[in-house]
Amino acid sequence: MFSKSTYIERRDTLKKRIGSGVLLFLGNDELGLNYADNTFRYRQDSTFLYYFGISQAGLAAIIDIDNDREIVFGDELTIDSIVWMGPLPTLHEKCETVGISDVRPEASLAPYLAKAAKDGRTIHYLPPYRPEHKLKLVDLLGIVPARQEGSVPFIRAVVVQRNIKTAEEIAEIEKACDITADMHLEAMRVIRPGMHEYEVTAAMDYIAESNNCELSFATIATVNGQTLHNHYHGNLIKPGDLFLIDAGAELESGYCGDMSSTIPADKRFTTRQREVYEIQNRMHLAAVEALRPGIPYMDVYDIAARVMVEGMKGLGLMKGDATEAVREGAHALFFPHGLGHMMGLDVHDMENLGEIWVGYDGQPKSTQFGRKSQRLASQLKPGYVLTVEPGIYFIPELIDLWRGLGKFTDFINYDAVERYRDFGGIRNEEDYLITADGARRLGKKIPLTPDEVEAMRQ
Amino acid sequence: MFSKSTYIERRDTLKKRIGSGVLLFLGNDELGLNYADNTFRYRQDSTFLYYFGISQAGLAAIIDIDNDREIVFGDELTIDSIVWMGPLPTLHEKCETVGISDVRPEASLAPYLAKAAKDGRTIHYLPPYRPEHKLKLVDLLGIVPARQEGSVPFIRAVVVQRNIKTAEEIAEIEKACDITADMHLEAMRVIRPGMHEYEVTAAMDYIAESNNCELSFATIATVNGQTLHNHYHGNLIKPGDLFLIDAGAELESGYCGDMSSTIPADKRFTTRQREVYEIQNRMHLAAVEALRPGIPYMDVYDIAARVMVEGMKGLGLMKGDATEAVREGAHALFFPHGLGHMMGLDVHDMENLGEIWVGYDGQPKSTQFGRKSQRLASQLKPGYVLTVEPGIYFIPELIDLWRGLGKFTDFINYDAVERYRDFGGIRNEEDYLITADGARRLGKKIPLTPDEVEAMRQ
Repeated sequence: MFSKSTYIERRDTLKKRIGSGVLLFLGNDELGLNYADNTFRYRQDSTFLYYFGISQAGLAAIIDIDNDREIVFGDELTIDSIVWMGPLPTLHEKCETVGISDVRPEASLAPYLAKAAKDGRTIHYLPPYRPEHKLKLVDLLGIVPARQEGSVPFIRAVVVQRNIKTAEEIAEIEKACDITADMHLEAMRVIRPGMHEYEVTAAMDYIAESNNCELSFATIATVNGQTLHNHYHGNLIKPGDLFLIDAGAELESGYCGDMSSTIPADKRFTTRQREVYEIQNRMHLAAVEALRPGIPYMDVYDIAARVMVEGMKGLGLMKGDATEAVREGAHALFFPHGLGHMMGLDVHDMENLGEIWVGYDGQPKSTQFGRKSQRLASQLKPGYVLTVEPGIYFIPELIDLWRGLGKFTDFINYDAVERYRDFGGIRNEEDYLITADGARRLGKKIPLTPDEVEAMRQ
Repeated sequence: MFSKSTYIERRDTLKKRIGSGVLLFLGNDELGLNYADNTFRYRQDSTFLYYFGISQAGLAAIIDIDNDREIVFGDELTIDSIVWMGPLPTLHEKCETVGISDVRPEASLAPYLAKAAKDGRTIHYLPPYRPEHKLKLVDLLGIVPARQEGSVPFIRAVVVQRNIKTAEEIAEIEKACDITADMHLEAMRVIRPGMHEYEVTAAMDYIAESNNCELSFATIATVNGQTLHNHYHGNLIKPGDLFLIDAGAELESGYCGDMSSTIPADKRFTTRQREVYEIQNRMHLAAVEALRPGIPYMDVYDIAARVMVEGMKGLGLMKGDATEAVREGAHALFFPHGLGHMMGLDVHDMENLGEIWVGYDGQPKSTQFGRKSQRLASQLKPGYVLTVEPGIYFIPELIDLWRGLGKFTDFINYDAVERYRDFGGIRNEEDYLITADGARRLGKKIPLTPDEVEAMRQ
């Protein structure tokens, strides 16, 4: 948590940017796994954290720009709760630390909004991503879930502000990145054939937890790196396997790290693994080299994709002109996801507010397979924190689908590709800050080149 | 997951017990922490698991008793999803393994229920505990959240069935208890002054995860054992501290373990710690001794409470007649929670269905402080699995409150109690199966007496 002035200034900036109306912030509640009181770990909404700094369930807040009021709505603990929860700072005390003196009971939120609506004032709210928010918006604003689209001026103002990280935010993110790197280094230290995937995740989670961190997202740690959304950890790790990890730590403050690495289950890569890894590594280095203010991140994606096509041509898997192949989308057979995303209080920062506002300046996205998964397209600016995470995968189902459809036969040598269908996947990911004249890696370095990985595995 | 016949038999039993109407089962969906796609670990609803065995988001099921139909509603993965999720069994294949051949698209659930309602048939549903269920019940049955009370015949039939654990369930629970015991043994092995609480939880979680388990609930691991709902892990452990742990593992099948232990941060208890611990240990042993079919669990609670009062009289903290003190509720100053609860697919089994149905045969609960927290009062039966977890706590806020109100001055020597206000709390917890003629502890034994704990700490 930052100093009081940080939160006051953040709210002032937001008020000036929007100009008028009532801004409604819904905090997150507790959610039960299998009954109401058996809760998941608590996670406050990131926008609420950004402007109000308080990680506590059952809160909402209003910035009433027209009347220059900032109000937190929530109920104080009863004496019964104190007996069960121990002595805690009161809500008034917590609000004081973030510069809010107007604290009102939760029950007074609905009448406040009803009066504002009756007075014809605009009530701005953000699009809900949790079912409890949807229920509340029905009750508070009378909007059915299907029409709870949020207020674009509010979304845009939050995005413009949160996209640029301040020095104190960068310091937090860098702490999270250091612990994230330690998670990956621990996995590289312990992994060996004969372990189960969940034993590796347990070792990584131990590093996060023993540093008082949560996970920023569900860890990917798999011998099936070609399966992109893969949170299954039940497989046995065999000699010759490639092991792909995508994992990160989240600090108590909510700031995140997010890195990926790919390591051999054995101490060395096979020749075939090393050949593909070297191409992926060139994609990564070319992307990092290109990072600077002003370059659209979609251009960096194109650079990485072209490097990949050239490399795959060298292996005989692709053919034709690299620029044309990437423009047409042929590269996406092997690189079907984006190059990276904004990172901050959310690991995909502000994904709940909509990618077109966070990464596309409100412009429509491409519908091309692969390219449409790029979460950030617009020009980079100093203060942006983003991930660089190119990958190369051999996805049997996708190969079969495209081959069956006769897709991109001018660019893809399917017969050669068949010989790699059991290859798996490779991804590496680092986190970068865009600076005045380039970019700086955040957090401790993890092995990136095949030589660095093998050296670590000795 | 059990064999097909288990699920078929469970559903047959339920159908016969209810007799007519339509039973609606809502499975759990994924829930996002800070945006929709950054999900918490997935947990299927336990009643859905019990009757349909499938742990997958986005499902619902109907048992249409009148028409003898069992239907699972859910959508198959698209080819796009398979590319991202890898090859998985289809929903039809999964349903086949639990004896369901009628699988329909999710969109056909609402019309099915609408027709049943139009035909004047009773639609039974269970009380919702997740906001996504509340939204669905609005859409499917047109019942607003405040009136979504569930169907009592459905609740009672599920409770009667799930309360009695079968041999294959007991085997699963025992596996979970073994891993739970290992978590506690690991904490006893690693703890030492100078560590943070979160370092101990990290070591315990490592044991759960490296055995491919989740946690059954958020771990309590604290130097402030007197704070009963305490999930904060940020304190430094100091010499002389008592450390209280309440933690358990949950298997992939959903079955749980739940144990508590209290250990000295040092290798030995202080004299004062040992004196109180010995009283708590006598409560525990007396409760276990009393376990047998036919005894109301509220009677076992009373036995443990009276043993405590006698012990506290020995320390000069209480006075008067123990039976009268417990009847009046004076013991609850030191023992403010219940003696235990049912355990199974939920760590508090079926808490979502309502304690009065699970533990009180539908009879009203006491309103007395302490006693009202007893989750199970009714007569024990063979096949019940429950926890035994007496505790003794010195809660400064509660002592001050009661002393200020002049409560129970005939039973409590407040001046003597003041000298223990910095003591903390002690709880031990084991899991028991009620057998034909007594009870059997489930899972590996963890140190229970002060001598056993100290021997483990050497």
